[in-house]
Amino acid sequence: MTASARPPEESPILHLRVRFAETDQMGIAHHANYPVWMEAGRVQWLRAHGLSYRSIEESGVSLAVSGIELRYRQAARFDDLIAVHTHLRVARSRSMRFEYRLERADDAALLATGASVHVPTDRRGRAVRLPEAWLTPIAALVEPPS
Amino acid sequence: MTASARPPEESPILHLRVRFAETDQMGIAHHANYPVWMEAGRVQWLRAHGLSYRSIEESGVSLAVSGIELRYRQAARFDDLIAVHTHLRVARSRSMRFEYRLERADDAALLATGASVHVPTDRRGRAVRLPEAWLTPIAALVEPPS
Amino acid sequence: MTASARPPEESPILHLRVRFAETDQMGIAHHANYPVWMEAGRVQWLRAHGLSYRSIEESGVSLAVSGIELRYRQAARFDDLIAVHTHLRVARSRSMRFEYRLERADDAALLATGASVHVPTDRRGRAVRLPEAWLTPIAALVEPPS
Amino acid sequence: MTASARPPEESPILHLRVRFAETDQMGIAHHANYPVWMEAGRVQWLRAHGLSYRSIEESGVSLAVSGIELRYRQAARFDDLIAVHTHLRVARSRSMRFEYRLERADDAALLATGASVHVPTDRRGRAVRLPEAWLTPIAALVEPPS
Repeated sequence: MTASARPPEESPILHLRVRFAETDQMGIAHHANYPVWMEAGRVQWLRAHGLSYRSIEESGVSLAVSGIELRYRQAARFDDLIAVHTHLRVARSRSMRFEYRLERADDAALLATGASVHVPTDRRGRAVRLPEAWLTPIAALVEPPS
Repeated sequence: MTASARPPEESPILHLRVRFAETDQMGIAHHANYPVWMEAGRVQWLRAHGLSYRSIEESGVSLAVSGIELRYRQAARFDDLIAVHTHLRVARSRSMRFEYRLERADDAALLATGASVHVPTDRRGRAVRLPEAWLTPIAALVEPPS
Repeated sequence: MTASARPPEESPILHLRVRFAETDQMGIAHHANYPVWMEAGRVQWLRAHGLSYRSIEESGVSLAVSGIELRYRQAARFDDLIAVHTHLRVARSRSMRFEYRLERADDAALLATGASVHVPTDRRGRAVRLPEAWLTPIAALVEPPS
Repeated sequence: MTASARPPEESPILHLRVRFAETDQMGIAHHANYPVWMEAGRVQWLRAHGLSYRSIEESGVSLAVSGIELRYRQAARFDDLIAVHTHLRVARSRSMRFEYRLERADDAALLATGASVHVPTDRRGRAVRLPEAWLTPIAALVEPPS
């Protein structure tokens, strides 16, 4: 019971349940949750690849978000199990781009596609170069668009 | 592996990771997330006991929240794995009370204790009796305070 | 004093204060709040033009969000007063596009630009034509990009 | 545009509109928004009394939340104008208690009552005494329960 209660964390695909608090009066998951899910997806994707976003943050570097895009295809509903697929498309010392595909886990229906662009910053929010110690392993994970 | 990427759902204890979006400028999880986590905890608890809150909602009955209480003991931080322990203390046709214990999964440190009181309502928000079909199995799950 | 405590609602520009709960551990307003602020901005913009989004919703039509874009220029901080400037760029029976400019009110510094695309839907989420009673007054408010 | 577009900030009573993103599929404002509104209410209350919570934070002291309570009386709906009345009940160097009354502005209907208890902490989250420079003016604002 207890051991099985932990989420499996070896997968780069994040699975999450739509929370009741995330619904709106249209009866669907509100669109402003998707950037939050994309963020959780890339944290999980980093973890699955042996990289801890928490450690990056603790080293004094943040991957500040400089832009997002989202296209909503089909509504997600309360308690739906969502699979967040994260793909790193660009990894340079001063810019990174992730793309996302959000699917309903049960039938793989496409719910949304999205992207986020990031700029490494220091604790004061100034743009910096991503340290090589992070850039090298991250850059090895870039997938060209299929 | 992909199949293993789904959260285990047989446990009444919900495990969740603190999302970056849930932190605040004090560097901790903002206190207003805890009612959201308690809610997700009771949905999971119901599911683990064979009861679907989504089905209750779809039958036209909601468990509207009439009160909450929370005591915060220790801060939760970004990426912490949190275990939400849910206990049903009262289950009557017109009132239910859940209690919660939120722990950091890694060391079982107590983060917060909480409670929520609920009133069954119909789609217009009017108080109703919880149908027997739901009340009977739920009432069987009441645990007296230890 | 008391009468003056209500927000002025005749302006199409929404002013809002960054809430503490909206900050993150980078010490800035989390990027997922901006779609929420854009949404509040267009509700206020509609109101200032004599149109109630609540009434549109109550008539059974929603302006579902089919896409968003955001470019973040400068961070917003706790308690900053933000001005959300909303502009309607496209208004057709089956599609609308709004653009936004978010500024810090004190010095008019540009914080972010954004856009949202909408599809009129019925209560079941199916795409419908926006009724003429709403389309006509809304279409009169389209501003071409400057 | 007009000066009137800024919210009036001299009042200790915060007025806010329920955001669409704050609704849930029950068609009401989700209960987890109320702690956020209470927090915004006390920030406004401090401001109206010449005290800046931002300045307190910048001095390295936070008023960490150690407990909250809420009783929900009547649902708030999308676009409702809410008045948050804040009252300071206890102000000691190591503990403060605020109470709140949330009303619908149009008809003064009582929506919820709440309370929050706070502990002054330093940047590492350790409990500290509230500096006299803050405590003295704050303690002068205590109102005994009516």
